[in-house]
Amino acid sequence: MNIKIEKLVKQFAKLPRVGTRAATRIVLNLLQDKTGRAESLATALLDAAKTIHPCSICGVLTDQDKCEYCCDITRQNGQLCIVRDLSDVVVLEKSGVFHGRYHVLGGNLSGVAGITPDDLNISSIPSRIISEQITEIIFALPNTVEGKTTQQYIISAINNPNVSFSELASGVPLGGDLDYIDDGTLTLAFWGRKKL
Amino acid sequence: MNIKIEKLVKQFAKLPRVGTRAATRIVLNLLQDKTGRAESLATALLDAAKTIHPCSICGVLTDQDKCEYCCDITRQNGQLCIVRDLSDVVVLEKSGVFHGRYHVLGGNLSGVAGITPDDLNISSIPSRIISEQITEIIFALPNTVEGKTTQQYIISAINNPNVSFSELASGVPLGGDLDYIDDGTLTLAFWGRKKL
Repeated sequence: MNIKIEKLVKQFAKLPRVGTRAATRIVLNLLQDKTGRAESLATALLDAAKTIHPCSICGVLTDQDKCEYCCDITRQNGQLCIVRDLSDVVVLEKSGVFHGRYHVLGGNLSGVAGITPDDLNISSIPSRIISEQITEIIFALPNTVEGKTTQQYIISAINNPNVSFSELASGVPLGGDLDYIDDGTLTLAFWGRKKL
Repeated sequence: MNIKIEKLVKQFAKLPRVGTRAATRIVLNLLQDKTGRAESLATALLDAAKTIHPCSICGVLTDQDKCEYCCDITRQNGQLCIVRDLSDVVVLEKSGVFHGRYHVLGGNLSGVAGITPDDLNISSIPSRIISEQITEIIFALPNTVEGKTTQQYIISAINNPNVSFSELASGVPLGGDLDYIDDGTLTLAFWGRKKL
């Protein structure tokens, strides 16, 4: 195979859940397309990579200063849902179970991967609690050691008696990622969230 | 989700064997990456889309005038393997069963999809037979009605008594695409090719 095509296949093969075979199909399909889909995809991706950045308040990706959730005046203040990344916001929004505000950490604490509190979007939570009159923080983090560690760290870092904390009810499979759960299970887990 | 991200997800979801969920994961993974993978992928794709084109002789995608198979002087002349597209060349090369020349049609004749001989890379075959002293044409086309129709059309269009024709032995599953067959089956099919 041409070396340029091979390099492109290797880059596509690094995408989540895409192997070498699927990457080859994708690249050849794009390059053999005569309607300019490769250019249009590349241009859109380049544009997004340049203009998309985390929302200054909650960390959701946006091309504006504030994301659509922080701008939305129909959403309730008072409840803050803390998630690991944007894909978790996407599934929660799809299930329609939550209408408060989000906070995207951008990862979970991990000794193995060397992720410390400074690497995560944690430090702005206390000021959001005051400015948005947050009374309940709902943790929708992965049901893993890292997720639970992160949750405990945030609870002790906030240390505010006026805020109650809850986490999603069991129903989230152990070791599971939020964005592979069906809407029904996710809704039940939200309703059955436990006080901490 | 941000409208720009949503549009990008829709473009990724159109790629072969990528659905909306996988596309969302891919796009968020790329945009949340801090090492510039999104830019680098987009730039590589844009560059490939601009510089990659079919080889002037055989139709294999390349960024040169002639592809690496047509330039390779260690490959035997005399045998021409006709395939539907470049992904078929990739699996044949991976199996290592063929060391002659390739000819990529760029599709198969199809009444339903309105693909006529003029849409395919067929007209240059007779001149290749003369210039490359081709004595055997091996059809490695999909085992479908379209594949067989294309094969019959090419045999009658060439109409040359000095050229023998063969097709891959059965072993290629009916209705199956070449690039999902394991190397062993493909090799057996190549060895057992039938005279027409």
